[in-house]
Amino acid sequence: MAITVVGSVAYDTIETPAGRRERCLGGAATYFSLAASYFTDVRVIAVVGEDFGKRQEAVFRTRNIDTRGIERAAGKSFFWEGSYLDNLNEAKTHITDLNVFAAFEPKIPEPYRDSEFLFLANIDPLLQRRVREQMPDVRLVAGDTMNYWIKDHRPALLEVLKGLDVLLINDTEVRMLAGNSNLVQAARAVMAMGPGSLVVKHGEYGATLFHKSAPKGNGAELRAPALPLEEVVDPTGAGDSFAGGFFGYLAAQPEITPAAYRRAMFYGSVMGSFACERFGTERLQQLSRKEIDERFNLFRELTHID
Amino acid sequence: MAITVVGSVAYDTIETPAGRRERCLGGAATYFSLAASYFTDVRVIAVVGEDFGKRQEAVFRTRNIDTRGIERAAGKSFFWEGSYLDNLNEAKTHITDLNVFAAFEPKIPEPYRDSEFLFLANIDPLLQRRVREQMPDVRLVAGDTMNYWIKDHRPALLEVLKGLDVLLINDTEVRMLAGNSNLVQAARAVMAMGPGSLVVKHGEYGATLFHKSAPKGNGAELRAPALPLEEVVDPTGAGDSFAGGFFGYLAAQPEITPAAYRRAMFYGSVMGSFACERFGTERLQQLSRKEIDERFNLFRELTHID
Repeated sequence: MAITVVGSVAYDTIETPAGRRERCLGGAATYFSLAASYFTDVRVIAVVGEDFGKRQEAVFRTRNIDTRGIERAAGKSFFWEGSYLDNLNEAKTHITDLNVFAAFEPKIPEPYRDSEFLFLANIDPLLQRRVREQMPDVRLVAGDTMNYWIKDHRPALLEVLKGLDVLLINDTEVRMLAGNSNLVQAARAVMAMGPGSLVVKHGEYGATLFHKSAPKGNGAELRAPALPLEEVVDPTGAGDSFAGGFFGYLAAQPEITPAAYRRAMFYGSVMGSFACERFGTERLQQLSRKEIDERFNLFRELTHID
Repeated sequence: MAITVVGSVAYDTIETPAGRRERCLGGAATYFSLAASYFTDVRVIAVVGEDFGKRQEAVFRTRNIDTRGIERAAGKSFFWEGSYLDNLNEAKTHITDLNVFAAFEPKIPEPYRDSEFLFLANIDPLLQRRVREQMPDVRLVAGDTMNYWIKDHRPALLEVLKGLDVLLINDTEVRMLAGNSNLVQAARAVMAMGPGSLVVKHGEYGATLFHKSAPKGNGAELRAPALPLEEVVDPTGAGDSFAGGFFGYLAAQPEITPAAYRRAMFYGSVMGSFACERFGTERLQQLSRKEIDERFNLFRELTHID
């Protein structure tokens, strides 16, 4: 089943202890679609500027990602510059230039309208909501957000949450959104805002899945690990890649069962771990399904005692 | 098989968001032995002062823990006061009074000498070494340490590490000991100092097991989760309780296989999770094997996708 994703397609300048890359292809929708493309059809809604070239578009096309919803506007593409010199777990943002995203009016191309799955990547909740409203009949909607929207755009974000089946956010964000420092209590409070399922990403420690119904393990359904990596070259996009693996796997299943959610968590961790191995989207551009399944099995060995 | 453990038996004054307790029974050897006592025979080597009462001793006796190696000295017992008001993951230490531990000369009671397992809980590495040297023939030696010994008593600690089969420390400690912020690289460096196996405890995110030989998953053998807790009443002793569950389970096995290590990690997480549910050792004093096995199964459900 096809996924439509709305979110940023951007240029990133990134500095990590492993080096520096100027203006490489980035953006939440980019990482998400590359990761999800190994599991199912993906269609992107975004806006780029006149600086967006054929080489960048080819990255999507090589992975058979539908780019008819990537609008070209006068001006420059979204640009982000950040570094991880002191702490690989948290980016220090130096520059965020919204550029063409500032006036973006998302439109759904006709051929996207039969998508059964919708992913609202991390952008302005007003844009997330507009896309959600234009696709009322999708089967499953998942989304992401970040501290900036939680702090300064709470009412708009709360509206988005009402329309979500699954929210994927990190530790700091779930605690900030709930105003509660206990993970279990914060998860319950956030699910009361709308989403029936919640994935809390713990960076190098993996992620926890919560379901509103049928809670076990104090409300937690599954804790998936992250792969301990010998070298984290660039953690940019790891969370979006997790979301792509998670939602891509779900969308490819004939039935969305609790067991499918559990396996989806592992595929999320798998794609997140690949993302960190090279700068930008380099690693996600050239994976094989065999590599993905081998890593999936490694994750199983890393967690299963029998 | 019996475990001999050397470490602190102490009084703790603890403040957490859930309340405050004055001078409750504490100390690394106390938490360790209570947790391990659900799996195997435990014998304690420690020193206490004249303030150590019958009620405290009864806590050990009720769990059939051998206290003949707990020496009584003139003066006061080890005392620690700390709080977790801002951060449940890290204690803020207000007072550490070594008292009778300052002049402690550990002696091994004759009936302890046939112990096949030895645990060197977190105390001065000079004391750990003295006990290790008096028990050269044990089958398996595990130990713990902390930032203070790593920073200011490194040469003595390095001597202890040479004699260890398993070291159990936390994230910050392994990175500090190795001088390397990458977990995989730090683990490898620490195992090169002696221990063939290393357990790195991640607090609320669980723990990772590394083996020097036969590494898989970038050197990590198993990642065990921690149970997301609705309320962490008091995290004091969670790491020592993890060690007690881990080593207690290992000591009770007919053979120490890689599979036994993997299950031991889960029993460590189980005992660590119980420790946090009440103040001090309250919860560890009155568990049943049935409760322990139910929680073990919950951990399995929380991690296994099939």
